[in-house]
Order: sequence, then C-alpha cells, then structure tokens
Amino acid sequence: MARLNDNYLKLKAGYLFPEIGRRIKEFTQANPDAKVIRLGIGDVTRPLVPAVVDAFHKAIDDLTRPETFMGYGPEQGYDWLIETIIDKAYRPLGVELKTSEVFISDGSKCDCANILDIFDLSNKVAIGDPVYPVYNDTNVMVGRTGEADDKGYYEGIVYLPCTEENNFTPDLPKGKVDIIYLCFPNNPTGTVADKAELKKWVDYANANDAIIFFDAAYEAFITEPGIPHSIYEIEGAKKCAIEFRSFSKTAGFTGVRCALTVVPEAVMATTSKGEKVALNKLWNRRQSTKFNGVSYPVQKAAQAVYSEQGWRQTKDVIDYYMENARIIREGLQAAGITCYGGVNAPYIWLKTPEGMSSWDFFDKLLNECHVVGTPGSGFGPSGEGYFRLSAFGDRENVVAAVERIQRKWGK
Amino acid sequence: MARLNDNYLKLKAGYLFPEIGRRIKEFTQANPDAKVIRLGIGDVTRPLVPAVVDAFHKAIDDLTRPETFMGYGPEQGYDWLIETIIDKAYRPLGVELKTSEVFISDGSKCDCANILDIFDLSNKVAIGDPVYPVYNDTNVMVGRTGEADDKGYYEGIVYLPCTEENNFTPDLPKGKVDIIYLCFPNNPTGTVADKAELKKWVDYANANDAIIFFDAAYEAFITEPGIPHSIYEIEGAKKCAIEFRSFSKTAGFTGVRCALTVVPEAVMATTSKGEKVALNKLWNRRQSTKFNGVSYPVQKAAQAVYSEQGWRQTKDVIDYYMENARIIREGLQAAGITCYGGVNAPYIWLKTPEGMSSWDFFDKLLNECHVVGTPGSGFGPSGEGYFRLSAFGDRENVVAAVERIQRKWGK
Repeated sequence: MARLNDNYLKLKAGYLFPEIGRRIKEFTQANPDAKVIRLGIGDVTRPLVPAVVDAFHKAIDDLTRPETFMGYGPEQGYDWLIETIIDKAYRPLGVELKTSEVFISDGSKCDCANILDIFDLSNKVAIGDPVYPVYNDTNVMVGRTGEADDKGYYEGIVYLPCTEENNFTPDLPKGKVDIIYLCFPNNPTGTVADKAELKKWVDYANANDAIIFFDAAYEAFITEPGIPHSIYEIEGAKKCAIEFRSFSKTAGFTGVRCALTVVPEAVMATTSKGEKVALNKLWNRRQSTKFNGVSYPVQKAAQAVYSEQGWRQTKDVIDYYMENARIIREGLQAAGITCYGGVNAPYIWLKTPEGMSSWDFFDKLLNECHVVGTPGSGFGPSGEGYFRLSAFGDRENVVAAVERIQRKWGK
Repeated sequence: MARLNDNYLKLKAGYLFPEIGRRIKEFTQANPDAKVIRLGIGDVTRPLVPAVVDAFHKAIDDLTRPETFMGYGPEQGYDWLIETIIDKAYRPLGVELKTSEVFISDGSKCDCANILDIFDLSNKVAIGDPVYPVYNDTNVMVGRTGEADDKGYYEGIVYLPCTEENNFTPDLPKGKVDIIYLCFPNNPTGTVADKAELKKWVDYANANDAIIFFDAAYEAFITEPGIPHSIYEIEGAKKCAIEFRSFSKTAGFTGVRCALTVVPEAVMATTSKGEKVALNKLWNRRQSTKFNGVSYPVQKAAQAVYSEQGWRQTKDVIDYYMENARIIREGLQAAGITCYGGVNAPYIWLKTPEGMSSWDFFDKLLNECHVVGTPGSGFGPSGEGYFRLSAFGDRENVVAAVERIQRKWGK
C-alpha cells in the first residue's frame, strides 16, 4: 500500500498569501467601488527593460533556424551567463568565483528548498523569526521537525528572533547548529547586516563546521556604501556559505524565472563516517539528475541585464522602486509610525500603530484606507505587531496609499 | 558539524551522458577533422515551428508594457494553458480532467524526480530494466536503497527486466510493490504497450493500492492506431496513476522547458495511521512551496503548440523524425542488425552485432563510423548487448550515419 510523506500533514493549513487573498476578495465583494491598492505580495510591476527584451527576442530567433537552434543546455547553466555574472556581479565586489561554482536555476525559491536534498536529516537548522516561510516549511516537509506548537514554532528547529532589540539581526544561537539561514537585505524586515555582523556568522560557521545558506535576493536594492552585497565579501565565507541570488526582483523576472546559486568548492560537509566531501560535487549531481537547466531564451535575457545598457536601464527601475520605498518610509514616519527597512531593501517593516495586532492592522488598513499589506505575524511569531509594505507598486498608487494612511493616522 | 546526504555517495560515479561526452571529447581532440554524427542523447534538432515562435515573441511583448506585464504566475501553471492541454491533448482520447489535476512544470525530468518528495521512504519501488536512469538514481538519492551490486542493481529496488523474451514489456512483479514506473513509448527501447498490457498494470495497482508513475513523454510519436497515448485511456487508471508529459520532444522544447504532470484527485495514498489522503493535495503543496511556476512566455509558446496551425506544423516535425526512424530501422535491418522500436517512438534499440558489449560497440561505432549512440548497458544490466540510436538528427546526418554503419557491417 503506497504510503505518503506524513510530514506534509504537519504543515499549517492556511499559508499566508491565500489568507490575504481571501480577505481582499471578501472586502471587494462588499465594496465593489473601492479602489484597493496592493502593497502586499512582493511582486514587481515595472516592464522588462529594452536591452533585456531585445536579447530575449533574439534568442527566440536563434530557435527558428537549424544552424542556431539550441536543445538541452547544461543543467548548470550556460558558461556565457555564468561568466557574465562572475564578471559583472561578483568581481566588482572583490569576489572571485570559478564557473563550476555557479549554478543557474529557475528560481531562488526552488534552490533554497532543493538544497536540503544534499543534507542529512540529522542537521540542526537555525532560522530567523520572522522569516520567508519557505525556509521553515521545506524543513518540515523533508521531515526535520516535529509538530508545531501554539505559536507556530516547529519542534527541532532553532528559531532566532529578529526584533527591535537586536536591530533585526539575529544573535548567535546558544546551542550548536549545523545549518543557518540568513537573508540580507532581509525579507520581510528590509533591514541589512554590515560586514562585522556577517563576520560574526562566518566565524561561527567555520568554528562549528556549520553551513550558512545566504539569501541575497535583494542585494541589488542596497543603496548605502559599505553594506555587503555578497556573503563572500567576508573572509572565510567561501569555506562555509552557499549563496542564493535571483533575477526576480533585480530585473523584474518574477514571471520570467532565472536565479543562481553559488556553491564554492571549498564548502565541505561530512559523511556519517566523518569524511569531508565538497558540497559542490553533490549539488552538481543533484542538479544534473533532477533538473534540466533554464530556458535558453531566458538565460540570454538574463545575460543582457548585465550588458552596459541593460544594467543602466535595470538600475533605473531599481531606483524607481527605491524612490517608492523612500516615499512610503518618510510618509509613514511623518504620520508618526515607526518604520524600519526601505533604505537598502524594497520592504518597509512598520510597527503597527496603537499596539494593534498585525492582522487587526491588516483589516483596518484594508477597510479604512483600502490598502493591502502583509501582516508581520504571517512571517513568524516575532513578526507580531509588525507589518510589511512593499515598494514594488506603481508610483501613483504608492503616493495615494501613503496619503490615505496619513489621513487616517497623521496628526 | 554539517552532515551531507550519504545516499549520494552510493551513486555510480559516471552518469551515462557525461561519460559519453567525455569519450566524444577525447575522440574529437585526437581526430579534429572527423565529422562526428551524434545520434546519442535524445535531443531534438529541428527549429521551433512558426506558430510557437509567434506566440513566444508576443508574450515577451506583453512584458514590455505595464498594462500587460506579468509577474509571478500560479505555481501550478496558467489556467489557459492547462485548459488548452485538457481540451486538445486529453479530451480527444476520451479522457476528462479537471484544471486542478494538471500541473505545468519546467520538465518531466524534474517532475518524475520531485514526485518522490510526497512519498514515504518505506514504499517498495519497481523500475524497468533497462530504464531512464533518473528513475533509479533519484530513488537512491532520497535514501530508498542500499548499495549497488556488481551488476548495478541497488538493494531494495525491484527491477523488472525488459528483454526480447517479454517483448520489452515487463512482467508483473512477484512480490508486492507500492510504486511502479512505466514509460511507454519506452525510452530506451522504443517499444510500446497496448491497452491489454497497461490494463494488467492498472488492475495490479488498484488491487494492491499501488501507484503507477506513467511517463508518456513520447506519446506524440505513436503512429499505429490502438496504442494508448495516456494511461487514463485505461479504466481505473484515474484511481492509481500519475502521468508525466512533456513539450520537450513533442514540440522541440528541450531548450525551452515546459512539461506537465497529471495527478487525478482520486489517486490516494495512506498516512502512517492508515488514513487515505489525496496525493493531488500534497503535490499542490509541494509545488506551491518549492516551485515558482514556468516562465510566462514559455507557457504562451506551449499553448501555441495546440493551436490549429501550431499542431499542424508540430506534426510535420514529428513526421520528419519518424521518417528518420524508418530510415535507421530499415537501414540497419538491411545490414543484418536486429532492431526494435522506431515505429511508435523516435528510438531504435538494436542488438549489437557479433555479441559485442554495449560500450565496445559504442567505441567501435565512434572510432570507425564516427557515429555516436548510447550504450544499452548505460540504462541498466538488461540493456547489455543493446544500443540506442535516436531519430532526432537532421535527415542528411541520419542518412550518412546509416550508410557508414552499412559500409561497416553490411554484407
């Protein structure tokens, strides 16, 4: 009799975004004329830039002629894309990588979920709180946890609270852990870690033979100098860190799908017999066997992001979103609302006014301002009393949303 | 100390296609002037058809305007694509499916690997021999097996030999199994199963609460009437079978990436407590959490395969490959070589002349005819003494390859 993976049944039924969708639907059915502004899900809204569009079209034309047709590509991605990324996105940071250390994929969500394949279940995992829910849920699904408690914490996971007190950068765990998820610039809090902060984690990992999963999906939104864009800017990180990056937010690729994962050859883990093996080799085997590479035209489009023209155009779009972030942040602050993030990330993490719960604020914001955001508690217990607004909207909507919030909460 | 997944170390070092690549590279470096014809890896060579190209371009143009821009799509795929597939690819077979039963993905390789996520390790798995190596290797990687024996059989897997004696369709297993992989038209043997044959398996699965993974990646190449294109043409299959289909071979999408998996709502597996749960729900959760959907322009291109014009053009390309298959099959037969397949599948499965081993024949064919094929033993022990040629080449190359083989082995 076929047996299913029972661990899936441990997952909480209501995933955050479906619940938000349900409440919006209820509201719009009752208020069909309300102009609802959505600053909830972190999805881009601006078109692809012209240089990317040109490369995308040209790549499709390659597929129309037998001489230039491309069938299966390398599972790891084309060298020309990998080399462009190393040259344009890593070398300027002083980070040198080999072609074999970079793996192109169709999404960071997939990669940061699939990476668990190459690790034993016995590893102790530490996750921030609040956190991007995929880190947590995928560990539940593979069977690394027990059941969830009343707060939503799963047995067996080490949660690292990120609060005002620690400036939203987690403290080192008290006990020993083997795998640590870090995300900077952070989703959902929009906060960043400086070099000293990341050095603390790299040193911990190297001292404890632990592995850091570093999610850098929002690095392109860093505006302040001195904030690291890659974990590999930290000495020793190439021995302990796997980095995830994505074209999704950087270049408006959420619907186009391209990302990358860096697994330096020096990153090791041990077998049950204590022998050290390079994780690069395992990830390469995983991708070769369970993945078939990213669409050829998509890889060509991704490469164009880093052309001279492409990057100038891409940077303009990022600046557009970051101007949105400034408008939201300063607008809320003017209304007396405490906010974090929004300087080096497209997310503003605000403290709910009057000590409201995250969901109460969600309902009030929806009902009274017709603005949608994301309740902080949806990202974990330590997110209670906070709320995420995304800067990915169109300017007009962002300005209107801020005005409505100011009318409601401004002095 | 971070522990890796030891099961990866059980895998045989040389995955088939990299080893082939290595030998070709060695040969071409030593013989730079040789015109090597590759009929090895089953990769398409003909361009995308015009209707698909048009839709692909138009979808990219959608991404250039804010009003038509598409960000994150549904992880399960767009309804318009799913509905087109149900209407054009299943309804004509007499198979009715719900939109929620079809999941669009970036490849059947990924899907038939990832599907193991939702099953418990305790399931007994049966795999054909020879077989598409991914079925076997992914079961090793998740830890369902012990070590491999000298023949390459992993402890714990039930292998079902497919040989001349059983017409390359496996016999029912002697013991009870929980999961059965079936692939028809078959890769690598190019043979098919008729309705009676498939009925035998569906009845077995329903009688034993087992699940069939039905890989139908090559169904579009069936030329003979009466051969089932889908497992769901068999009564009772919707209660026990998950079907994988792909645009890769059907429409030349190996470099474009689009596939689909059907998980009917009636397919159940049991929890550790014996409760029955629909696998559709689990797969939906898996895809929602670990996948982010297929590129929007790719889905638009895939939909165009099933437009009236698109299908006519696509069918022409399939006919072109199947004419290649006829040329190879009849050409080898004329040279006195026994072959199977090539009538309802783009693969010809030949018996190596003079009782050579598969790899010896590979080397001889490469060195003396400058033709690349795939050693049958690479697909499993029962493939020893066989060899796979693919019909996906260009006509001129196929004709030249057959001539070279005839010069070498013909009477």
